[in-house]
Order: sequence, then C-alpha cells, then structure tokens
Amino acid sequence: MSKRMDMQKESGYDAWLHYRRNRKVKNLPAWCKVIVVQEADEVLHTAASELQHGLSSMFGQQPRISAVPVSAPFIALGTFQEHAWVAERFSPEEQAEVSTEGYRIRGMGTPNPAHSTSHDNKDIKGTHVTVAGQTSKGVLYGVFHLLRYLQGGLDGKLDPTSEESLQAPILDVLSNPANSIRMINHWDNMDGSVERGYAGASIFYDNHAFTTNMDRLRDYARLLASVGIQALSINNVNVHHVETELITATFLPDVARVAAVFRAYGIQIYLSINYASPIQLGGLTTADPLDPGVAEWWQAKAREVYAAVPDLGGFVVKADSENRPGPFSYGRHHADGANMLADALRPYGGRVIWRCFVYDCKQDWRDRKTDRARAAFDHFKPLDGLFRDNVILQIKNGPMDFQVREPVSPLFGALKATQVLLEFQIAQEYTGQQRHLCYLVPQWKEVLDFDTYAQGKGSTIKRIVSGALHSKSDSVSSRRKAIVHVGSGSFQEEQTSPSPKRGNYGIAAVSNIGADANWTGHLLAQSNLYGYGRLAWDPELSADEIANEWVRLTFSGQGTEDASADLIPAIKQMLLDSWNIYESYTAPLGVGWMVSPGHHYGPDVDGYEYSMWGTYHFADCRGIGVDRTTATGTGYAGQYFSPHADIYESTDTCPDELLLFFHHVPYTHTLHSGQTVIQHIYDTHFEGAERAAQLKDTWISLREQLNEGIYEQVLERLEHQAEHAKEWRDRINTYFYRKSGIADQKNRPIY
Amino acid sequence: MSKRMDMQKESGYDAWLHYRRNRKVKNLPAWCKVIVVQEADEVLHTAASELQHGLSSMFGQQPRISAVPVSAPFIALGTFQEHAWVAERFSPEEQAEVSTEGYRIRGMGTPNPAHSTSHDNKDIKGTHVTVAGQTSKGVLYGVFHLLRYLQGGLDGKLDPTSEESLQAPILDVLSNPANSIRMINHWDNMDGSVERGYAGASIFYDNHAFTTNMDRLRDYARLLASVGIQALSINNVNVHHVETELITATFLPDVARVAAVFRAYGIQIYLSINYASPIQLGGLTTADPLDPGVAEWWQAKAREVYAAVPDLGGFVVKADSENRPGPFSYGRHHADGANMLADALRPYGGRVIWRCFVYDCKQDWRDRKTDRARAAFDHFKPLDGLFRDNVILQIKNGPMDFQVREPVSPLFGALKATQVLLEFQIAQEYTGQQRHLCYLVPQWKEVLDFDTYAQGKGSTIKRIVSGALHSKSDSVSSRRKAIVHVGSGSFQEEQTSPSPKRGNYGIAAVSNIGADANWTGHLLAQSNLYGYGRLAWDPELSADEIANEWVRLTFSGQGTEDASADLIPAIKQMLLDSWNIYESYTAPLGVGWMVSPGHHYGPDVDGYEYSMWGTYHFADCRGIGVDRTTATGTGYAGQYFSPHADIYESTDTCPDELLLFFHHVPYTHTLHSGQTVIQHIYDTHFEGAERAAQLKDTWISLREQLNEGIYEQVLERLEHQAEHAKEWRDRINTYFYRKSGIADQKNRPIY
Repeated sequence: MSKRMDMQKESGYDAWLHYRRNRKVKNLPAWCKVIVVQEADEVLHTAASELQHGLSSMFGQQPRISAVPVSAPFIALGTFQEHAWVAERFSPEEQAEVSTEGYRIRGMGTPNPAHSTSHDNKDIKGTHVTVAGQTSKGVLYGVFHLLRYLQGGLDGKLDPTSEESLQAPILDVLSNPANSIRMINHWDNMDGSVERGYAGASIFYDNHAFTTNMDRLRDYARLLASVGIQALSINNVNVHHVETELITATFLPDVARVAAVFRAYGIQIYLSINYASPIQLGGLTTADPLDPGVAEWWQAKAREVYAAVPDLGGFVVKADSENRPGPFSYGRHHADGANMLADALRPYGGRVIWRCFVYDCKQDWRDRKTDRARAAFDHFKPLDGLFRDNVILQIKNGPMDFQVREPVSPLFGALKATQVLLEFQIAQEYTGQQRHLCYLVPQWKEVLDFDTYAQGKGSTIKRIVSGALHSKSDSVSSRRKAIVHVGSGSFQEEQTSPSPKRGNYGIAAVSNIGADANWTGHLLAQSNLYGYGRLAWDPELSADEIANEWVRLTFSGQGTEDASADLIPAIKQMLLDSWNIYESYTAPLGVGWMVSPGHHYGPDVDGYEYSMWGTYHFADCRGIGVDRTTATGTGYAGQYFSPHADIYESTDTCPDELLLFFHHVPYTHTLHSGQTVIQHIYDTHFEGAERAAQLKDTWISLREQLNEGIYEQVLERLEHQAEHAKEWRDRINTYFYRKSGIADQKNRPIY
Repeated sequence: MSKRMDMQKESGYDAWLHYRRNRKVKNLPAWCKVIVVQEADEVLHTAASELQHGLSSMFGQQPRISAVPVSAPFIALGTFQEHAWVAERFSPEEQAEVSTEGYRIRGMGTPNPAHSTSHDNKDIKGTHVTVAGQTSKGVLYGVFHLLRYLQGGLDGKLDPTSEESLQAPILDVLSNPANSIRMINHWDNMDGSVERGYAGASIFYDNHAFTTNMDRLRDYARLLASVGIQALSINNVNVHHVETELITATFLPDVARVAAVFRAYGIQIYLSINYASPIQLGGLTTADPLDPGVAEWWQAKAREVYAAVPDLGGFVVKADSENRPGPFSYGRHHADGANMLADALRPYGGRVIWRCFVYDCKQDWRDRKTDRARAAFDHFKPLDGLFRDNVILQIKNGPMDFQVREPVSPLFGALKATQVLLEFQIAQEYTGQQRHLCYLVPQWKEVLDFDTYAQGKGSTIKRIVSGALHSKSDSVSSRRKAIVHVGSGSFQEEQTSPSPKRGNYGIAAVSNIGADANWTGHLLAQSNLYGYGRLAWDPELSADEIANEWVRLTFSGQGTEDASADLIPAIKQMLLDSWNIYESYTAPLGVGWMVSPGHHYGPDVDGYEYSMWGTYHFADCRGIGVDRTTATGTGYAGQYFSPHADIYESTDTCPDELLLFFHHVPYTHTLHSGQTVIQHIYDTHFEGAERAAQLKDTWISLREQLNEGIYEQVLERLEHQAEHAKEWRDRINTYFYRKSGIADQKNRPIY
C-alpha cells in the first residue's frame, strides 16, 4: 500500500503511450542506441522522434538520431524508394508485398539459439532493426508497432522485462492495413461543445474560435497515428452557422494550422460542410446542385480551400438529414448533390464523403407503415452506380442509429458499384455515455464478420468496406502470410495484400474524446478508441487480442510489479463482458430506443414511443416489437439477401437478440433459449444489474495493483454504473410487469 | 376588410391600457379638462400623469394639471389627510371606511333626472369628480378604476361611446383591497433567462447585468399598478451564483434604480436571496441560522441593503427545496431559519416571505409510502406559532405544483397562528405554456372559494389568505356595502372593510411576462395577469366579470366599430371555456404530471412515472391513480378538516375530477358521471381536442372584427393548440388503450 501511495496519481492522459520506465532493464538495448533516418521527410522525422521518446522513456537513456548508418547496431527507418540501405534489407518481392501505408519490420542477426530451428532465418540480415515502408506513413506505423512490442502489449510473446529477450529479439513483421481510409469523425462544434460528447469540451474549439492549445492536438495526433488512423474530420456533421464559415478566409488559416499538426502524424484533415453554403456564404438564392452558378461557386470555393490546405482530404456531408439542407430541397437526388461537390474537389484530389443517414425525422408515430430502418436502402440503392469516383457513401453499421444491438445495414452489399465507408460510433451515445463500461470491439467484430451473401457466401462486411469484394482483388488464395518472430516466441500474422483499387473504401467512426484529462471520460473507454484504430487496420484481430493489447499497454508497469500479472486478465475480462452486460440490463431483444429523447441516457421505456423519430417498440398489454417482415410488416426484412431475408422473416429462425427488431410477439412467445419473452426480460435484467455490480467488485479487488488516480476515477464510474444498472433493471421490469400483468417466475422484487 | 387593412398591425404591447381614441365622442368631457393635485407626492404625480395620458389618448385633447381647484369642473386627486378639498367631499365615517390602499371615487352634481329616484343622492356633492384615499397609492388605484370605466370595461353599465352618458356620469365608488399583499414573483435569472418563462427573455436582466431599458420596466409597472399589484420580487427564487450578489455593492445601485421605477407606481420591490449567502458572499464556513456570526452577518447585510433601498419589501426565500440550501443542512428547522432573517430585517420594516414548497425531490419511485403531497403540511404544521410577526409563509395553492387540477393545499387553515400568502402561478408552466389558451381565473376562484372548515363552515381560503379568518375582524355582518352609480345604470359593490391586522397576508403569483412584444407570448394570456391582479384586490369578482372587463378593455375599439359587439362575448366565452378544455385533453381526473421532466410541455404519460420527483400515476394493466387515503394509502386525505377528510377518503364521495389524485381504481370503476374511468378518458380526450379546434374556428370567425396583428398572432397559437391537443388526445388514449386492452365504446381511432 505504501508503495502505491508513493506514486503520483495518474490522470490517464498518456493513455496507451505512457512508456513507463522498464524497471527490470537497466540499459537501453544496444540496437536501440542509434536511430538512422536519411530522408528529409516530416512524417519520418515524427517517426524518429516518437521512437526516440518511447525508448528513452522506457529505458532511461536517449537514443541518438543519425542521418548515416553507423558501425554500431542501430534501428533504420526509411522507405524502399529513398533509403537504399533500408531497401537492401528486403527482396523486391518482399517490398512488393507492402502496400502504400503498410510496413515491414525486420531484425537481428543473433537469434536465440534455443529457437533457431523453430523458424526460418533466411530473411534476417545484419545486426540491426529495420522499419521500412513504401511511404513514410508506413514507417511511422511500423515504429508504433515496434514500440507496442517493447511496451509488452503483445500477447505475452515478448517479455520486455527480460534483459536477455530485449537484447536479442527476433522480428520479421509484415503488416498492411486492410482499409485504405481509417477515419475518425469529430462532432465538435465551434462553441466548444461536442454533440454526443461525454468526455468534456472540444479540444479543437472554444467560444467560436480555434484552440490555441496545439500541444493537446499534437498529443491527440500521436494517439491516432499510433493505431493507424490517417483521416480526421474536425467539425460536426451538423454544420451550424459559425461552422459554415470554416471554409472561408475567416477560419482557413486556423484549419491550415491544425492540418499541419496532424499532417506531421500522417493524418489528413476533412471538413464537414453545410450544403447551403452557397446561400449563407455566397449570397446565392439557391444551393441547387444542378444550378450552374452553384457549381461554379463550389469550384471557386474548392480552389480557395485547397490553396490554404493543399492536402485536405475533402468534405464530409450530412445532407437532407435531421433538418439539414440538401439536394431534396431542389427536387434533386443525392447523386446530383454529391457529384457536383465531387467535381469541384476533383482537381485537388479531394473526396466527398456523403452520409447515408437520411430518413424521415418528422414521422407520425401513428403510422406503422413507414419504417425508418428501410430509409438508407430505399434512398440510396436506386442511386447505385451514379456517383463519381471520388464520392464515398458513409453508411452506419445498423439501419437505425448506433443502438446497443441492431442488425447490420442491408445497404452494405446492395451497393455494387458505389464506394462505401462503414460508420461506427466510438462515442457511447446509446451504450452508456462513457459512464457505463461498454467495450465495443465485440459489437464491431460482429458487424465486420457478418456475411451479407451479396456475392454469395463470404461476402462479409469487412470485405465490402475494404473494397475487396467489389474490386475482386481479394480472395483467400491471394492472402499472404508473414512469419513474425519476437523474442523467444514466434507466431504468424495473416495480412491482406494491397489492392490499388481500394483507395476510396474503409471505415469511419465518431470520436469519443474530449478535453477531459483522460481523453474519454471513462478511462476504460480509451480501449474503444484504441480498438477502433486497430480493427480498422486489421479486422482479423479478435476482440480478445485487442483487449489484451490495450490492457497490457495501459496498465503494465502501473501498479506494484508483481501484482500486474493478475491485473491484465482481470481487466481484459471486464472489457470482454461489458457489452453483453450493458445489453442485458437495457432495451431487450434488439428493440432499442428505451432512452429519453435529447440526452439519450436511459432508462425511459416510452421515451421514443410517441415521437416523430421513427423509433418505436409498440408494447401493449399483450406483446411488443416491430413487425418488419415482408409478409405482414414493413418489408424491411426483404432488403437483405438470402438467406438473411428468410432468417429474419420468421420467428422460427430470427436470432433471439434481434427478435423484437423484426417481430411483434406476445410476451408469452418462447425464445430459442426456451424462455418466454417476458421471463427473458426479467431474467436478463436481474442478472445484468448483478453483473454490473460485479464489474465494480472486480475493480475494487484490483485496488492494490493500480495507480491511485486511475483506480479512483474508474471506481467512480463503475459505482455509478452499478447504481444505474439497478435503475434500468427496475424500470424495465416494472414497465413490463405493469403492462403485461405477468409475474416473475422467481418472484423477485418488481414494483 | 379594407378598413381593417388600413390599420396598423397592433402588437398587443399596450395590453389593457391602450386607451384607443373614442371615435363616438368629439371632445374631452368638461369635468375631465383639469386635474387638480395639491400634494407633492410621487405616486400622486404618477396618478395625475396616468389620468392625463389616458384622457388625452381617448378623447384627443390633453387635460391640464393644476395645483389648486379652479372654477370650471375638474377631477381632484388626493388623500384625506393632505388634501382638504378632497377630504371635504367625504364624511368622517366615509373616510374611515377606506383602508390604507383603498379609494373612493365620487362625482357629479347633475345626475340624469330620469334616474334621480332610483338611487340615493345624499352623498353626491359638487360638480366635480373626486378620487380619494388614505394614501397616494389608494388614489392611484382609484385613477385606474376611473380609466377602466372610461374605457368601457365595466359590465356594460357605462357607455363610453355615448356623449351624453360621459358628460354626466354618476359615480360613487368605494373599493378596498381584500388582501394587503398583492404580489408578483419573478423567476428571472440574471443571464436573461426566465425559469418557466414563456414570453421571451427577462425584461430585468441580460447577460448578467441589469437592463438599461427602464421604459420597459415603467410600462410594466403601469400594467401592474393598474390592477392593484403593490409588491414585486424581481429575481428567481432559485438564486444562482451571480444572483446571490444582488444584495452586494455590485448590484445594489441597480436594484435601487429599479426600485425607483416601481416605487413611482406604488410597488415595493423584494429580492430572493440565497440562504447560503453568508458562505458565498461572507466567506463564513456556515449558514447555520443559530450561529451568532451568521445572524450578525445578515444584520450587517440588511443594514447595507436598506441603506441602498430604504423601502425594500424584504426577502423571498426558497430554502431546503429542490437542492437549494437551507436550515436543514445545519439540523435547524424552518422557523429557526426564517426568524433569524426576520430579526435582521425588522429594524427596517422588512418581511421574510418563506416558501413552503419543501419536499423530498430525491424520492425513490419504488417507494409508495412517501407522498410529496403531504410534505408542506408535514414540514410546517408543527411549526405553527413559532414564526416572527414579520415572517410570512408562502403556500402554493395545491399540494403538488400548479397542475391543471389539484385539491387545495391542506396547510391553509391548519396554520392557525402563522401569517400566510397564497401562491398562484400565472405563468402557464403546466397549463399550456402560453401556447395553449388557459384562462386561469376560474381555477383560482375555485381555490379562493374552497371552504377549509378550519374554524367551521365559512373558513374559506380567501378569508384565510386575507387574514380575515384568523384576525377575527372579518364577519359577514362587518362587511359594508357601497352603492356605485355609473352613467345611466347603478349597481352594488360589496367590499370588505379594512382590517389593521392583515398587513402580512395576501396573495403572490408567479409572473407570466417577458420581453415579447405582447408581454405574455399568447396575447390572450394577458387576461391571466389582469385577472390575477383584479382577483387579488377583490376575490368576490367572478371569473366571468373579470373576463368581461379584460376583453372589453383589450378589444373594444380595436376592429370595425359595429362589429365589436359580437367580439366581446365570443372572446369572453373562449376564455371561460379554456381551462376546462385544457384539462379535458390532458392528464385525466386529477392525476397530473403526464409531461416530460425538464420542459414540462406534454404529453408524456410516463414522463414523471419513474422519476425522483414524487409524481406518479401508478398506471398498470388493471388501473390507475394514487391511493392517498388514510385507510390504505399515504394518509394525505387525513390532512384535511372534516368533512373534506371524509369526502376525499371514499370513492363514493370523492369528486370525479380528483378521483385519481386520491384513489387507485380499476379502469372499469364507474364515476359519478355514470361513465367508467377508461371511457371517461377516451370521451374527454376526443371531445377536448374537438373543442380546442373550435377555439380556433371561433377566432377565425372573428377575423373581420380584429386588428390584423392581433388576429394573426393569436391564430398562430390557436392553430398550434388545436394540433397539439390532437397529439395529447392520441397519446393519452393510445397509452391507456395499449395498457388496459379495453376498446373505446364508440370505436374512434386509437393507435
């Protein structure tokens, strides 16, 4: 205890990049003493600095950066094209296996003899470590990979506390990102608020001006680059009055300053724009995309914007959605709207990211025929093939809006000739608002692994959003394997080879960070930011692997050293259980939306029931759920390819967890689990609240192994969660008991 | 139509004081040409100015103000004590009948011979009109009374469009206010917002500073004085950080400036204070009322405040309520808390108005034993008799919080040795927020006429809050009658004689005004401000009489002249029907609270059902309502005196409109009306929505008779109301149909 108390309270600001001093290792390993970088490239400079910082922090001694190879061991960073020494470490075939933003790491000439027979050493040359890529961005990602190894966040295969292991690690890594676009969307407003932000104010803006705290932005860029994020939209998709001016001389110099900070970390900036800008900014009377004056206005605007920020990624557009302006106002469709902008951005290599979150938000709750779930498909499927090649449609993972449980959007796969981005939400808008623990990687994994059958079996979401399915370049046979040897162990990483046609595909996600000291409000919610980046890079990683990485990186070396061994599996298990726990005590069986409009923090069973948002459960004294079948309901189930259309159509085959999303059933309906719907509600809610309380108990049991600052801030959140889970339990159970009149079989307290 | 279009659009700013030009009368009547005022008194000066303004506006010619009587006819304004000519018009007995703020109006020596036998002329002296009082405030109220007569707002007895009638009116009026304190409470915050304000921003504050628009405040003072309001608290009872400083040198000069504006209209200013001021402002560690340092701090503070505003009315205090600080924090009771402040204010004649709105706002909805309705009685009844004589307890009309229907608070009458103020809410927080029409005078009348039986039959609320019941000076035999002769008619006004002991009794109400051009958002909501003032002056006035006055004053002369005759009864009927209409389509049978927490603008049947506010309906699939009986419920019914305790205890005798407030009954329970509860819900909601639509239709039918500006602004509100009433109808009906499974007997659409 005294040891714990001696330590300074940590805030969590350093997140997974704290690089705590490795107390088991006295000296900087020999091969870490010099970093060789020849190329005069900003991102390579960043890579070298990050490596230098990480190594000196972990080993208490600062490596030297050199522009030429030295005779002593060193680490070389460079591109195949520009750095001859680096290029020589790899055969032409090996170089060709690396995609634009991928990397190879290779090193040491003195493998541990004990393992010398267990792997093939033919590729290992010299007594150095080399981090190489086609581009400097690839090298930067490789450096962060190496740092993760050295921090010990890698599945226990490397023991960074072993001097011997560190002196002679064996590395042969090939890693290519599966997705070309790995983006984060900020919903930050210039007044400093963050729409659906649960971690304090914006780090970008305050009081309608840009922040002056560039250090904070740089630290954010480090976090993002360390997990491979390379695209960032910096303002809310709901573009209000002041934010509309971001593309004017008023703010473009600020945008350029921010872009410079992120550029150094290989991150491209995007701006969300107001579709009505020609009216607000240009004084035109229309924003009609087919009006030549409007098109000209945007062309001139693009010229102005790209003069200020030549490498701007492009525009993100929420049009004709939730009261935002768009082409519908002028009787035009979304392809008209997007293409006009795309033509304006084309000369500069800019992209238009066009959101498909378009639905009738003035729906009448009395009308059971209109179904919001159908909307994205109904709006965009007919436009397939009509978009320019620098337009990308951004589609939310589910048909509604980031509920704890939704089916996968049927628009994926249905678009056969249109580039798409998958949109996740790291911000826990409907999943506990970073006051409840909800590790979202398992949810995202389910989405990515979902097989749409769009082109037969194997048409998974991850292959659609990476562009692999439609570019036909991805097949199991083309996947390469690279052997990775680390320390005294070895394992294999399977990586997807690069596809030149996939530049306009990928994943975006809504940010969960803010100005809170620990970035994410709930410290454990950092795992979602980390996990999102890792998964966007490599969707084959399992939720367990990512959790393991994040927990090791974040917590190792934090408490007393001997205790840490318990800590890591315990926290990992908390993460892995958390989505299921959250789901169990909130809205049951896929029905969703049992929260209050406005703040979206439940419980409020009828909160959305009589609203205009298209979000209903239709519970009455007999049953509950939304009939979305083709036979008797809204027909939404028919938007899926076979076999899902059939699976969802029938209560016999519909998965329990989505039953109420697709069907209105009596409370006495028997689930596949063998339980009735009403008893399932009671059981899961009682159990869920108990399991939430156990999360807190687990944390308390780890107290001695945790830094006090970290312990306390997380405990406060878990205590709230445990209490709030009881509130969810009692309100949901009471609501359904009062409505159905059916008693709990186990006679537990319901009010 | 063309005539209408020619007129300038009115905003409603002049409210009932517009004094439109009397087009039927060419010249200023002879007796109006000179106003004689001898006394150098600010309020008398105001009275003369108001009279001069009103007369010149109505008759197109400005009267002269003179300090001495002239030989021509004139109007004399003055007090019995200081103005000898005025005093001579009344016998000592007649003077003694006038209370501190009452008045007599007397005039002309040449009655119409045709009516000379119909009334007693002995009191009529001279060829002048005299407005007299004990104080200049009384004279001011008398002047506004006279102006009301001349505007034609008096029950059709005076015809201001008749030259003959105007030249020879016969006036003999005695009017004394029933209540000594006739107060309005502002819930204005210094950031410019108004808590529960539905008519724009505050007219007092903006951006944490006082307004510089003193003209607007003066115009507000005119409106208030014209209906007899003489006390005004100018800041929200929830006193936030900045507002706490109102009693410091930072803001006291501003308070003094505002006080000066209202002082000229006979209105005394009060400040709401933060009970924790000694901590925030004084740097003390406690606000314990029994701590001598705290008491000294308040004594010094009172000295400072009264140095700045010598006639400040005192402090309004919301303590230990809805998270406000108070004596409970220190283990003290409310008498300790109030008396300490009262002692500090006593040297300056200040009062402490202490609100009884104290209840547990952190209640657990699972707990059916705790009953918020009981709270005021439970907290304050035991303290009866313990308060200083400059403490007044302010009690809301009902036990909950200004719902459209509540029983009368049982605390009235239960306090036998404590001074009380009755609190109404003019702001339509729960009654349509000034977007729905809801003329509240009928509701207030029911409260005032409610017989508590505290001291046997006749212990009405109006006698309790006027101080009459407890001062024993009020009895039927002591009530005097004064004959009033006006124009060609005559009628009687029954007035209560003054009671010297009633200085610390009366009525307060929460303001409904804001910076909107028409003061109240909904123009017709001006009737509630008007009606509140008139009722506080004279609770014997009927809702019909007050509506008639207000409609005549507001609308006469507005449209084409010949059409106005239809207008007045039509609008009056809209007002009189409106409370019942609003009640019928909202929360049924007294249960209340079917609105969303936060904004309180419904419908949201379960909005408060699982909250911590103590506001539940307990609807399940079998029935609804709160059991507040002594036999099986919370015992609230037992807080009433007999016979109400018994009447409310049994469903056999409980009035239908309060049934669900006192009882939990099955939906199939049969009401006294003969209808079941569920069918009553369906019927009233279908009918209520239809009647709301009829309000709009009536208004449309009056279009030609209305100023276009007035017509349009009210139409917009009535159209919204008609639509929103349908939403209420459908949501309430659907909720109960889904919950009960019982179909409407008439098979109307329920969803």
